[in-house]
Amino acid sequence: MATTVRILGIDPGSRKTGYGIIESSGHRNVHVANGCLSLGDGELAPRLLKILRGLSEIIEEYAPEEVAIEETFVNRANAASALVLGQARGAAICAIAGSGVPMAEYAAAQVKVAIAGNGRAEKQQVQHMVKVLLNLQDKLSPDASDALAVALTHAHVRGTRVKTGIALSKAWG
Amino acid sequence: MATTVRILGIDPGSRKTGYGIIESSGHRNVHVANGCLSLGDGELAPRLLKILRGLSEIIEEYAPEEVAIEETFVNRANAASALVLGQARGAAICAIAGSGVPMAEYAAAQVKVAIAGNGRAEKQQVQHMVKVLLNLQDKLSPDASDALAVALTHAHVRGTRVKTGIALSKAWG
Repeated sequence: MATTVRILGIDPGSRKTGYGIIESSGHRNVHVANGCLSLGDGELAPRLLKILRGLSEIIEEYAPEEVAIEETFVNRANAASALVLGQARGAAICAIAGSGVPMAEYAAAQVKVAIAGNGRAEKQQVQHMVKVLLNLQDKLSPDASDALAVALTHAHVRGTRVKTGIALSKAWG
Repeated sequence: MATTVRILGIDPGSRKTGYGIIESSGHRNVHVANGCLSLGDGELAPRLLKILRGLSEIIEEYAPEEVAIEETFVNRANAASALVLGQARGAAICAIAGSGVPMAEYAAAQVKVAIAGNGRAEKQQVQHMVKVLLNLQDKLSPDASDALAVALTHAHVRGTRVKTGIALSKAWG
């Protein structure tokens, strides 16, 4: 019998940070919860604090054993938005590292391949596949969908990583 | 008699994060402490956590009433390093916002004008002026010097800001 692992996926953003929790046992993945931290568009500092505290609470509540986070896409032409995204990502990573749960990162293209079989899949196609793969009927916010997609990606590849000896990043106390 | 305000200056970086504490009363500024969190060059997540926890401890230990942080310089040609710097900055801002101490930001050019009277002053010139202004004899690390420089900048302009009604950012609980 395959062991079950609880995975938290995170899609960090400075206005909205999506999260999604699944349980994976071999090839079977079950939806546990999903949602989105709405951070508003006021001053940056309280928004970053909401990411840190909100994700810390989610990790405490759902007790995931592994966390998957999407690698932030960096558009070379836009360093200013890379800085803002980096700040949101820094707050999210602090929440993960503070909890001591091991973390893995996936590029957007990896997520698209894992979920839709195509590294250039449209956003809607990925969202559709997330709902199909997790048998979700209800409406799903785009941010929560992206978070579930990265959790599913991790569920797909973690077996391979363990087999090939590529360990997850260590937990930090 | 002028009231005394304790100011913490921070120069966030992903390898080294400098900090410096001064007490300012009118035109007189007194050095309290300075140092540098050395974060190493291992995995990013534990380094970000060190920034969050290290600065939180420093804020608790020295109880500054106001915090000044240097605005990260964004080189348009280098989005990848803007992302890394943004992550370090996000961790630092989480520590400040979490402590509830009001924060002000200053561009590098503002700091150079305030300390050396010239927005294009050389780094060494700023470091020299920081030692002169605070009457420091001992060796000062570049990161701690940059942090003291932004604290001194805040000491210089905070009076003006209060007078002109431009408030510091609010404290966040």
